[in-house]
Amino acid sequence: MHRLNELYRPSLSLLTDLYQLTMAYGYWKNGLAEREAVFHLFFRKNPFDGGYAIACGLQMAVEYLEQLRFDSQDLSYLATLTGADNQPLFEDAFLDYLGELHWTCDVDAIPEGTVVYPHEPLVRVQGPILQCQLVETPLLNLINFQTLVATKAARVCSAAGVFLPHAADRVIEFGLRRAQGIDGALSASRAAFIGGCAATSNVMAGRLYGIPVVGTHAHSWVMTFASEREAFELYADAMPNNCVFLVDTYDTLEGVRKAVEVGHRLRATGHEMLGIRLDSGDLAWLSIEARKILDEAGFPDASIVASNDLDERLITSLKRQGARIDTWGVGTKLATAFDQPALGGVYKLGAIRDENGTWQPRIKLSEQTIKVSNPGILQVRRFERESGPVSEHRGDMIFDEQTKWDQSHDVTMVDPADHHRQKTFAKDTPYTDLLQPVFRNGEIVGESPSLQAIRDRVRDQLSRTPMAVQRFENPHEYPVGLEQGLFHLKADMIHAARERT
Amino acid sequence: MHRLNELYRPSLSLLTDLYQLTMAYGYWKNGLAEREAVFHLFFRKNPFDGGYAIACGLQMAVEYLEQLRFDSQDLSYLATLTGADNQPLFEDAFLDYLGELHWTCDVDAIPEGTVVYPHEPLVRVQGPILQCQLVETPLLNLINFQTLVATKAARVCSAAGVFLPHAADRVIEFGLRRAQGIDGALSASRAAFIGGCAATSNVMAGRLYGIPVVGTHAHSWVMTFASEREAFELYADAMPNNCVFLVDTYDTLEGVRKAVEVGHRLRATGHEMLGIRLDSGDLAWLSIEARKILDEAGFPDASIVASNDLDERLITSLKRQGARIDTWGVGTKLATAFDQPALGGVYKLGAIRDENGTWQPRIKLSEQTIKVSNPGILQVRRFERESGPVSEHRGDMIFDEQTKWDQSHDVTMVDPADHHRQKTFAKDTPYTDLLQPVFRNGEIVGESPSLQAIRDRVRDQLSRTPMAVQRFENPHEYPVGLEQGLFHLKADMIHAARERT
Repeated sequence: MHRLNELYRPSLSLLTDLYQLTMAYGYWKNGLAEREAVFHLFFRKNPFDGGYAIACGLQMAVEYLEQLRFDSQDLSYLATLTGADNQPLFEDAFLDYLGELHWTCDVDAIPEGTVVYPHEPLVRVQGPILQCQLVETPLLNLINFQTLVATKAARVCSAAGVFLPHAADRVIEFGLRRAQGIDGALSASRAAFIGGCAATSNVMAGRLYGIPVVGTHAHSWVMTFASEREAFELYADAMPNNCVFLVDTYDTLEGVRKAVEVGHRLRATGHEMLGIRLDSGDLAWLSIEARKILDEAGFPDASIVASNDLDERLITSLKRQGARIDTWGVGTKLATAFDQPALGGVYKLGAIRDENGTWQPRIKLSEQTIKVSNPGILQVRRFERESGPVSEHRGDMIFDEQTKWDQSHDVTMVDPADHHRQKTFAKDTPYTDLLQPVFRNGEIVGESPSLQAIRDRVRDQLSRTPMAVQRFENPHEYPVGLEQGLFHLKADMIHAARERT
Repeated sequence: MHRLNELYRPSLSLLTDLYQLTMAYGYWKNGLAEREAVFHLFFRKNPFDGGYAIACGLQMAVEYLEQLRFDSQDLSYLATLTGADNQPLFEDAFLDYLGELHWTCDVDAIPEGTVVYPHEPLVRVQGPILQCQLVETPLLNLINFQTLVATKAARVCSAAGVFLPHAADRVIEFGLRRAQGIDGALSASRAAFIGGCAATSNVMAGRLYGIPVVGTHAHSWVMTFASEREAFELYADAMPNNCVFLVDTYDTLEGVRKAVEVGHRLRATGHEMLGIRLDSGDLAWLSIEARKILDEAGFPDASIVASNDLDERLITSLKRQGARIDTWGVGTKLATAFDQPALGGVYKLGAIRDENGTWQPRIKLSEQTIKVSNPGILQVRRFERESGPVSEHRGDMIFDEQTKWDQSHDVTMVDPADHHRQKTFAKDTPYTDLLQPVFRNGEIVGESPSLQAIRDRVRDQLSRTPMAVQRFENPHEYPVGLEQGLFHLKADMIHAARERT
């Protein structure tokens, strides 16, 4: 598999907002560059009015952090930047400092493919504040988008029934032509595969990430020839082992009949027609009629592929109408996360050491209490319940790793938006702490999971997630609370900050 | 300026849908690989329910086409792909053919920065059908997204009054953290600059494309220190020539007063505070109050920067409320084109030579007549009217370059959606033919304009575009018609095709 630094030629260290560098300069000038701090990356609202998200993008973030090093061209460029007085923004000594900089932080993160919820830190970065701050923007860029697309893909695949036992349906992603840029397409293909898609049309994503690629022919192939029949025949002659005929260029059901004729011809040469594709019209009705034609002609195994601006809601509707589609081609709506093209992930300071080395928790205030960030060095504990073959997720508790509570007793978590909503877990409730070490002192810890392992994790995680949380309409809000001590710390800090101003 | 092939390390030739390669194989197997064809890239509907779009992305498309060459790793990867029978999809001889392939097509295109309308070919590709077909997907990827963002940027800048004579307002783009992937961000920064933005926060876009970069400090800077005042002072000490203070971490107007105190301190050292930034709350009211505080304190030239999910509609509303904002920071809504994150651009076969070398026009049928593509080898003629200092655009006529009509007479164009809507231009009406040569026989023709020249073109084009077409609510539909002969050819072809099936 290709790595990020093999994809891009220039150093990616300038892939950040200028204010990260001007703040870095400020820390450096004030002797605070190495002051230890902790930042958390999280989102505040599930995308698509849904009940969950799928964490994704960590691998690329790791590759980004690993390569973090300013090359001489980066530094030369920074030296050209000037302020209001036309003097350089940055002193040479600072650029020298940047030139020597390499990544030395600790990073803990929730593994890719995990079901996650609002306010849970997906990534925690701890180390010199200058480094923590520099990587805010690229981490958000890489994780916001892939988390968004993996979540969309999981929803689409769930609508198509991909996660059901013995599922026959497949979702294939072909968003490249409408994706937001080259990497918008490549990283969407990766995240869509993680979220449950079976394949992509994007050949470069196939080569770079090892994702299966699919594709046969377009309308233009049919339009090239004098007749649809001739187009199908010539395609079948050329590539008899990869025949899915696009049947809607002229009259769709006539197209299916012509596909059947060519299918018989193929069979006579020892090949089997894989299926047909519908790309317009009433997909429910056409698929039912096409299925009849195919079955009656002796092609019960031929797939019916459908496409045309599909998303999870259209697929649900088509299923409800009894559509006989088994392969769902999803492009624009998936690759751009059309109905919500950005996840509002943020990256907030949680704590900073004072001059004496003592950690001081920090919050970002807001008029809306729900938008106030959580202070501390945070971890997420997911409580589980044995329920049939797999344990079901029951609730997630965010806690400060520095807070010691008596773990021999039951633990109570509090909903920060409504402190009357509390939930107590018996002391022997099984749990998993979600954030796992990724970097220690700038060195990668452990192995990166394969794409297939991440993809399997999504399936496993969803099987443990209550169905009420997964539904599209008015999903149940999965319980996420603050450990009681953290809740009180936060409440006190909000109170103190509001007193102060 | 960096070029696309200096940005990405691997060959980009696999950045296409697999079906382009399977069709390419089909053409090759059937001896049609070199058959000459013409394809047009166009969109069918203006984005954002608006009245126009800004063509963008051509330069990257040119760089893509120029580098089109399959390297040995591409070919090795393609050799691994198999069909239903586990046999290779592609014969070795075809892979050898691909290995020898280089770009030999003619390309004509509407220059970047031009105001364009639905159904107008933005790019026309003419050459061996195998090559034309291969590049469909990457051309769509590169041009769809940048056209979308340049259009969004032009709308946002227009709302902010950037294009007015003596405008003082500026729009700055800072979408990196929410953009769709690395290149989603980089190409959005480029397109946003073309569409009228003054600067970006994305330092890598600054380095790669020479776009001005801006940035000062975030909330985390303020939260790092014991007080807001201390935070502003230490920032000012470090970087006195780049001081825009973010004032809304605690109490916004108190923040403005603290900025003023530090502004006086700065002035005493020979520096001038550039301004303040508002990132939350009632931006209209806060900006008016902040302006008063700044003016009364002797800082009439200090900017008021505002941000917080701004787009063209919010900016229009803030202006209407008398907001005293002069610098508009726009991120997510611009870089992802949030309210419509994909332009539905398509690429359709217009004509193909038959065995005798005679051009045969082609159309793509659809149940909706408006979605039927235009046949031929198309060009767009834009008619103008002298009106004051600049000529105003009056209407665009799509015509087939092979159709000869009597240019000594008036010319009539027909609205393909309603043939009763016709428009006649006197024979001496000034005009410009929009599609200009870009490649001839695979070689680049002429010079690429600079980013600044493209950006200037947008401003000039908008000054010639009727205001009724530019308004956000119920924009006037700019007249785009088919030259009469083309209209009749198309009508005959639709009739014949519907007869046939």
